[in-house]
Amino acid sequence: MSRRAEHDVRDLVERARAGEARAVARLISLVEDASPLLREVMAALAPHTGNAQVVGITGSPGVGKSTSTNALVTQLRRAGKRVGVLAVDPSSPFSGGALLGDRVRMQDHALDAGVYIRSMASRGHLGGLAWSTPQALRVLDAAGCDVILVETVGVGQSEVEIAGLADTTMVLLAPGMGDGIQAAKAGILEIGDLYVVNKADRDGADQVRRDLRSMLALATGRDGAWKPPIIKTVAQTGEGVDEVVDKLAEHHAWLASSGELERRRTRRARGEIEAIAVTALREKWGDVHGRSELDTLAAAVAAGDADPYGAADELLAAFTD
Amino acid sequence: MSRRAEHDVRDLVERARAGEARAVARLISLVEDASPLLREVMAALAPHTGNAQVVGITGSPGVGKSTSTNALVTQLRRAGKRVGVLAVDPSSPFSGGALLGDRVRMQDHALDAGVYIRSMASRGHLGGLAWSTPQALRVLDAAGCDVILVETVGVGQSEVEIAGLADTTMVLLAPGMGDGIQAAKAGILEIGDLYVVNKADRDGADQVRRDLRSMLALATGRDGAWKPPIIKTVAQTGEGVDEVVDKLAEHHAWLASSGELERRRTRRARGEIEAIAVTALREKWGDVHGRSELDTLAAAVAAGDADPYGAADELLAAFTD
Repeated sequence: MSRRAEHDVRDLVERARAGEARAVARLISLVEDASPLLREVMAALAPHTGNAQVVGITGSPGVGKSTSTNALVTQLRRAGKRVGVLAVDPSSPFSGGALLGDRVRMQDHALDAGVYIRSMASRGHLGGLAWSTPQALRVLDAAGCDVILVETVGVGQSEVEIAGLADTTMVLLAPGMGDGIQAAKAGILEIGDLYVVNKADRDGADQVRRDLRSMLALATGRDGAWKPPIIKTVAQTGEGVDEVVDKLAEHHAWLASSGELERRRTRRARGEIEAIAVTALREKWGDVHGRSELDTLAAAVAAGDADPYGAADELLAAFTD
Repeated sequence: MSRRAEHDVRDLVERARAGEARAVARLISLVEDASPLLREVMAALAPHTGNAQVVGITGSPGVGKSTSTNALVTQLRRAGKRVGVLAVDPSSPFSGGALLGDRVRMQDHALDAGVYIRSMASRGHLGGLAWSTPQALRVLDAAGCDVILVETVGVGQSEVEIAGLADTTMVLLAPGMGDGIQAAKAGILEIGDLYVVNKADRDGADQVRRDLRSMLALATGRDGAWKPPIIKTVAQTGEGVDEVVDKLAEHHAWLASSGELERRRTRRARGEIEAIAVTALREKWGDVHGRSELDTLAAAVAAGDADPYGAADELLAAFTD
């Protein structure tokens, strides 16, 4: 790296730490673009991370994820918290651009200096979500956010993957979104630290809460001590959102005191290191011996001339030679 | 491997190739269990693969994926095809078992020897869907299936990932499932080779088709020559399903003649080889120098004492030493 680039990175990191929104945005763009400068950026950020509570927000389309995120930001700001919002769109690798940009989302908070809002596409990244999201979180964390809300955009996203990246996972449900079996099929009943029944002014909200309560009672507790609360909200009006904020803080305190926070963050770091290492390997595999060894092997497997295990052996041997 | 195990694998593969359903089921169980025997199974199957058309079926919950799959099987059987159905559930890594087993799904075809139906959970696999699905497909392919329908179960699954594994991707929509932007958010508008508007007897079906048509017209063609058709069906009654079967055959012929089939299959094999190689590496990473090097590095990154890039470097260095 040139000394100029090195200076630029340090300057950018300093300005982001001082809370300058443009510097934060630029650093997340470096993550999104998989910039070669990231190596130095992450090294510079590392000592300044670990303060933010990362909250993953999941739920089926239509439950009101965006509205709830918006209402949560309002309530967290009232409580004096600095808030980051990361909207991740892992579902559309072929699109030329995010359908919902930063500007049309969350206009309520566009002028608030205590809120960073950022949409990020993970398409095009070799390592996908596992690679890019933790690095974007690290930027927002070092920039002084107290709480970072991670919301996935679109259908078909990996809810479970987001849960793996968060300290606290909040699962949203709403009446009229399908019966209990639908919810269970979604696999979201086992990942929640907090359950929110949104649109609680509609018919069926109490039934959703009852169904949820009996299903959670059947599930064996994941972490022993923490019993996931179920909260009713009307995100549109803000009703119940103060209770959500209280429960988020409660969960954060429990995480810290139980040692679970460290365990979850170590697990997250583990995934991140693996993703970076695998990405580095994949780049090499695409270009071994001056041609793509992997493409040659893949063509042989596709033609039935080789089996995938033998091909994987050859690939690993070519790399470690 | 013992000579006994070796003999068992050969016997199993022979019986699966002869069309014995129990042998097919047993081989897919080996895939699901990530059995050490798989290496030899895949080597034995490799020469007998490449005949089946793999059809991925995607769509939001509620559009009628299961009913459509069922109706397609009926129609394909009428056309004399041998059919495999692989229902993949990537969304619930924590559950103790699939909610919808083979027995409750597709009861219409339970006694038909020309149909293999199999649910498969990819949870617990280090390589996930990318690792297990191609191997299960190879089993069904070698067992003589002409068409294999791959359906994802539940919400939150990786629609795009399934599309990457299929020769032909069929996207299901239905009236009343949200507006055009919802569909576009789903990222499914760019992955379809075939679009099916199901529940076409309901209000709004023509509107869905019109919206779809204008959105597809805006999109630039991915493959040049193939123009994805839009077909209206009522899967419940079978209406329109014959046309779907015709279009699937047409797409298969186009894939073969255009060279796109080979390209897609090579891409699929590439992903599969990578997933196997990465899984092998991850297993090693978890146990380098008699302890978990990766866990130590992850704890350092979580504590802010190391950055993920440096940690990834150390991991790779420890492995290639």
